[in-house]
Amino acid sequence: MPPRRPRHRTVQGPAVIYGRVALIGLGLIASSMAHAMRRGGLAGEIVGYARTAATRDVAREIGLCDRVVDSAREAAEGADLVVLCVPVGAMGVVAAEIAPVLKPGATVSDVGSVKRAVIEAVEPHIPAGVHFVPAHPLAGTEYSGPRSGFATLFDNRWCIVVPNGADRAAADRLGDLWRGMGANVDEMDADHHDQVLAVVSHTPHLIAYTMVGVADHLENVTDSEVIKYSASGFRDFTRIAASDPTMWRDVFLTNRDATLDILGRFAEELFVLQRAIRMGDGQHLFDYFTRTRAIRRGIVEAGQDTAAPDFGRVPGPVA
Amino acid sequence: MPPRRPRHRTVQGPAVIYGRVALIGLGLIASSMAHAMRRGGLAGEIVGYARTAATRDVAREIGLCDRVVDSAREAAEGADLVVLCVPVGAMGVVAAEIAPVLKPGATVSDVGSVKRAVIEAVEPHIPAGVHFVPAHPLAGTEYSGPRSGFATLFDNRWCIVVPNGADRAAADRLGDLWRGMGANVDEMDADHHDQVLAVVSHTPHLIAYTMVGVADHLENVTDSEVIKYSASGFRDFTRIAASDPTMWRDVFLTNRDATLDILGRFAEELFVLQRAIRMGDGQHLFDYFTRTRAIRRGIVEAGQDTAAPDFGRVPGPVA
Repeated sequence: MPPRRPRHRTVQGPAVIYGRVALIGLGLIASSMAHAMRRGGLAGEIVGYARTAATRDVAREIGLCDRVVDSAREAAEGADLVVLCVPVGAMGVVAAEIAPVLKPGATVSDVGSVKRAVIEAVEPHIPAGVHFVPAHPLAGTEYSGPRSGFATLFDNRWCIVVPNGADRAAADRLGDLWRGMGANVDEMDADHHDQVLAVVSHTPHLIAYTMVGVADHLENVTDSEVIKYSASGFRDFTRIAASDPTMWRDVFLTNRDATLDILGRFAEELFVLQRAIRMGDGQHLFDYFTRTRAIRRGIVEAGQDTAAPDFGRVPGPVA
Repeated sequence: MPPRRPRHRTVQGPAVIYGRVALIGLGLIASSMAHAMRRGGLAGEIVGYARTAATRDVAREIGLCDRVVDSAREAAEGADLVVLCVPVGAMGVVAAEIAPVLKPGATVSDVGSVKRAVIEAVEPHIPAGVHFVPAHPLAGTEYSGPRSGFATLFDNRWCIVVPNGADRAAADRLGDLWRGMGANVDEMDADHHDQVLAVVSHTPHLIAYTMVGVADHLENVTDSEVIKYSASGFRDFTRIAASDPTMWRDVFLTNRDATLDILGRFAEELFVLQRAIRMGDGQHLFDYFTRTRAIRRGIVEAGQDTAAPDFGRVPGPVA
């Protein structure tokens, strides 16, 4: 009975979850959201804004949104959903700017990697009658900017929604949007989110940045040697150490306590292993390395990585 | 004029580099060598030996070698090239065992991740008239055993040959074999090899094992949360922390000094970043994260990794 659902078109139809969606900030996540919302026909209209004119120009050139406007306020005005896709440190300023024009009944969300600090920065600005539902899609690549997005980025990845006391229907509706963009949705409170992310994302990134920095500072091993021989382990670190510096600076500044807690534990465990190496305690090393394999198997079984040989990587062209 | 070269057959022909090759140990590297030598028609005959009967049975079942024999000595006898593909800690014992049967003019090589310790363990057993040319192919996956090998593992990867004063012709011939298996070949002295590998491989592996261990030991974040949300960075660590525990135990015990040196530098740099987080020094973090991006670009440009979105990974099946 219902008409065939139009796909790959952003017209009003049975799949539309928000009539107008405003994306503030047009980097990797926002541009992937634009593609994924279009793929699913989830938004009646997508309006975008980015801080720099250069980014707005690119977004217009590639037709990323239905409209790209020249202020956050203009983007937010009349939107049913406003998603803050800016670095965590900029969320508060943007929220203050758009607050006066938010439509009653609208939802404000974000995609920041830290949730407690975003809530503290944004919540005070949200007017009565507007729903604030923070969220965080756990997906990314090493690329940034409006050209880096693609429709499948969120497929089979997780998006954590932090209802934070918001209206149940508003939180469910945001969850529907993320499911429509391909993600699995979990709910969590802000502090637990920040602890989990400190383990699975923030500390690994800091460690990767550190290891790449160590390699860069050596006197007796050249950068070109490090690059040539990187397939033996190091490249897995450089991959996550290539992410956007502004975003990561803000993550560490705003999830300070949880990150410092995990870093402290990390240093402890590293020193125990370092001591085992120094003392020649092979049994300790062997037992430790055996236990960590189980977690890896779990990740492959959970569909969060490929088990393909060479990690699914295509060898590059022979020089 | 010359007849068409038979490919994918291990018969004597223009591409054959060694008449008979003995592989001692039949794990990932040896089984990949068997496939790659067959692909290139590089060996007249491939003879294999593994310590456990179970591994020998699997190798026979899948036809990995032309012959699988029941002792290292039987495999080495009459071979033109003997490749020790056992954990670094077992190299000396195997060398002592096969020494009496080595053919004059034969070459002994290995694929160990550490070179100085292998030279110290193996060289004293090598009889006069036999060439000892250590080597180390920088390639791997997280899998082990005779079924894990595949012919393309070494394609466009690097193999470091350590001539260690050996006969020039013997070192060149071994280089030809590795090039025939798809690898690029570099030569290096043993100590420099061990320093380079401590940076690009050994320390990153130890750090990855440590990070996975930290995640496993947390009270307030469950293993299943770590697994579910691993796509946000953590999985890149688990990937290299899933490698063979015996192999890695031996690496750290035998490349102790270089690894401890890099670990010391790593701890220093990590503490500087940790302090910047604690003090809220965003400029320091931003500058550090910006510098590390350049190394990543170099690796992609050098063809040692893919620049594909989502790192070339295929999203797993939706649960």
